[in-house]
Amino acid sequence: MKIVDGGITKPIGFEAGAVAAGIKYKDRPDMAVVYSETPCEVAGVFTRNAVKAAPVLWDKRVVESGKKCHTVVINSGIANACTGKAGMDCCEITAQAAAENFDVDCEGVLICSTGVIGMQIPTDKIKLGIEKLVQAKANTAAAAQAAARAIMTTDTHEKEVAVQFNIGEKTVTVAGMAKGSGMIHPDMCTMLGFITTDANISKEALSRALSEDVERSFNMVSVDGDTSTNDTVLLLANGRAGNDKIETDTEEYTLFARALSEVTITLSKMIAADGEGATALLEVIVEGAQTVEQARVIAKSIVTSSLTKTAIAGHDANWGRVLCAMGYSGAELEPQSVTLRFESSAGRVTVFEMGTPVTFDEELATNILSENEVRIVAHLGMGSECAVAWGCDLTHDYISINADYRS
Amino acid sequence: MKIVDGGITKPIGFEAGAVAAGIKYKDRPDMAVVYSETPCEVAGVFTRNAVKAAPVLWDKRVVESGKKCHTVVINSGIANACTGKAGMDCCEITAQAAAENFDVDCEGVLICSTGVIGMQIPTDKIKLGIEKLVQAKANTAAAAQAAARAIMTTDTHEKEVAVQFNIGEKTVTVAGMAKGSGMIHPDMCTMLGFITTDANISKEALSRALSEDVERSFNMVSVDGDTSTNDTVLLLANGRAGNDKIETDTEEYTLFARALSEVTITLSKMIAADGEGATALLEVIVEGAQTVEQARVIAKSIVTSSLTKTAIAGHDANWGRVLCAMGYSGAELEPQSVTLRFESSAGRVTVFEMGTPVTFDEELATNILSENEVRIVAHLGMGSECAVAWGCDLTHDYISINADYRS
Repeated sequence: MKIVDGGITKPIGFEAGAVAAGIKYKDRPDMAVVYSETPCEVAGVFTRNAVKAAPVLWDKRVVESGKKCHTVVINSGIANACTGKAGMDCCEITAQAAAENFDVDCEGVLICSTGVIGMQIPTDKIKLGIEKLVQAKANTAAAAQAAARAIMTTDTHEKEVAVQFNIGEKTVTVAGMAKGSGMIHPDMCTMLGFITTDANISKEALSRALSEDVERSFNMVSVDGDTSTNDTVLLLANGRAGNDKIETDTEEYTLFARALSEVTITLSKMIAADGEGATALLEVIVEGAQTVEQARVIAKSIVTSSLTKTAIAGHDANWGRVLCAMGYSGAELEPQSVTLRFESSAGRVTVFEMGTPVTFDEELATNILSENEVRIVAHLGMGSECAVAWGCDLTHDYISINADYRS
Repeated sequence: MKIVDGGITKPIGFEAGAVAAGIKYKDRPDMAVVYSETPCEVAGVFTRNAVKAAPVLWDKRVVESGKKCHTVVINSGIANACTGKAGMDCCEITAQAAAENFDVDCEGVLICSTGVIGMQIPTDKIKLGIEKLVQAKANTAAAAQAAARAIMTTDTHEKEVAVQFNIGEKTVTVAGMAKGSGMIHPDMCTMLGFITTDANISKEALSRALSEDVERSFNMVSVDGDTSTNDTVLLLANGRAGNDKIETDTEEYTLFARALSEVTITLSKMIAADGEGATALLEVIVEGAQTVEQARVIAKSIVTSSLTKTAIAGHDANWGRVLCAMGYSGAELEPQSVTLRFESSAGRVTVFEMGTPVTFDEELATNILSENEVRIVAHLGMGSECAVAWGCDLTHDYISINADYRS
């Protein structure tokens, strides 16, 4: 497997496009399309928030129907969440417009929205935007990048990645783009993620690969502990690579799952590093756990702790807050068996060993925590399972960005 | 029942004192004592964090032993948490010094610490501090206030309250002081709370009253979602009011519980309003729930949401974030039945009604959210139970206070 240049148009047969539809933002692209002329098997995972945005309800129905899909229409600026019946009507209108303009089945159109909650999307602008998207779509790296930019809200840069691997003589490509910067917390992935692949793969294998993957990737990211109403990851496979169909429990399935993981974990780390106001990517590794679930719960608890995140912002090796967050995670913990260290490209320092504080070089610790990628490694001393979570520091800018977001 | 002036020395027979022991802070009082010559029945509730500070482990043993107590020794600056065996030894040394100086049983001495985690307390300073506390203690309002100030860390002002009610001819007083500003989250109360009463009450009644009470008071406060390693509430009753002994399931028990509730809810609101960096007290009322537990879980989820808290800081009626936090609470929710409004002394405005956004006066909403006490009222439309939670807005100052707390 190798990482290659390009985004979601890298797999054979996929096009992307972006236009400025003026839905809420002025003078910037705010609508995007992902399109495959060849029909795609599609898998999706959605927010577990009881308050689900209208497009989430729409897409769940499409994915569960087993229909093949050609088109995903995405807008940024307005989330179409908490919008009652008008919000569902907007989905219907969007799908109809997409069906007409892209000449596809209305019931197979996927829709994603991100932005302010509670505001209605102006459907006339969506319709005009879709008309323009038909012209804008192209099978180029520039088109993929334009789409990755159009779906951004408070993100500071686009997030895309592509990888390739071989099945026999055939090259299979998996690529993805994502957006997400605030309202990000591990309970079903993060805002919006779109993954395209030209793999020939069964719907069952595709769905299983995605649902197993998100538990280790998007679900292990937290920016602020707020699980969004719109979280959606869609995975579209159009089969154009021409490989023999991938089924579950085969060697090819494992290869595909590995490529998918490379894409989703890369996007997850990009999202964490671009967390609202973030100056550092925080990677938390929990080792020595009895179960993977225990390791995950503790890793998430650390990466979500406001006090740990502000300490990282201050480059302050206040490890007590890390232990405190481990303690209140709800998972089993034996404090007397815990060992804790901080790491980065500037070095590593152990601060707590088998339940007892260790005297350490404060200057070294400050240097370690001043890098823009920082790692906390906690060994539980209880077993041999591990998990990784990603987040970011909590800074003044998070407050500035969010205190008056709607204006 | 009436609220009266004074703090923890208001009940008959209680003394308090404060001294500057130089444990970590310079030139400010950092040790306090609560003392009753008459032995006290004592009840306590403690953090549910798996990582418990040494004094929490110590106090749990004292409270569970059923011993009567005279003395609580408190220090601020260092939390004596994550300190291994040396931390437990420190408790032993503190209790012995208190036993000698106050002429009480070592095994009945209660100890509380608050401050930085992972640092060892200099025991020589604790011993000197205790010697000075014997001289400093007094049965005056000034002494109570001095103690309430000495236990502060990042708090901006002391928190104390006293109430009185009658049982027959006898006047019973319940009073309390608390500290807590950061690392505050509902899972067993908040940092340190001390309640004194001269009520004559059985240990069983005292314990039940406290454990029922904290579920509605301290456990409904959140500043930052971080449950401390040191959370402790102690309730001491010395019987000096001379009333007939209060037992559970009596009219007098109900009177006592009501007075206790007045004290703990007043302290809870003071803690929330004084949350690190806070400019507003946020009160969240969830009504129309099927069960009290459902209402509590949803109220806590709202009051803990970083995005809701930053919106309040920005006086921005971004109600979608409130609905989002209700949705991810884990409690059952029917979004189509929810009604939501904002209230304060500036007025009230309904923003969401039976699952649909309501057009509202943005200027009025901004004015409502610009007050220093703001209320969010969510009606679930599912039943008739309710709950209240308290928190605060999330501002730049929270980051400033916490980015470099140890220095």
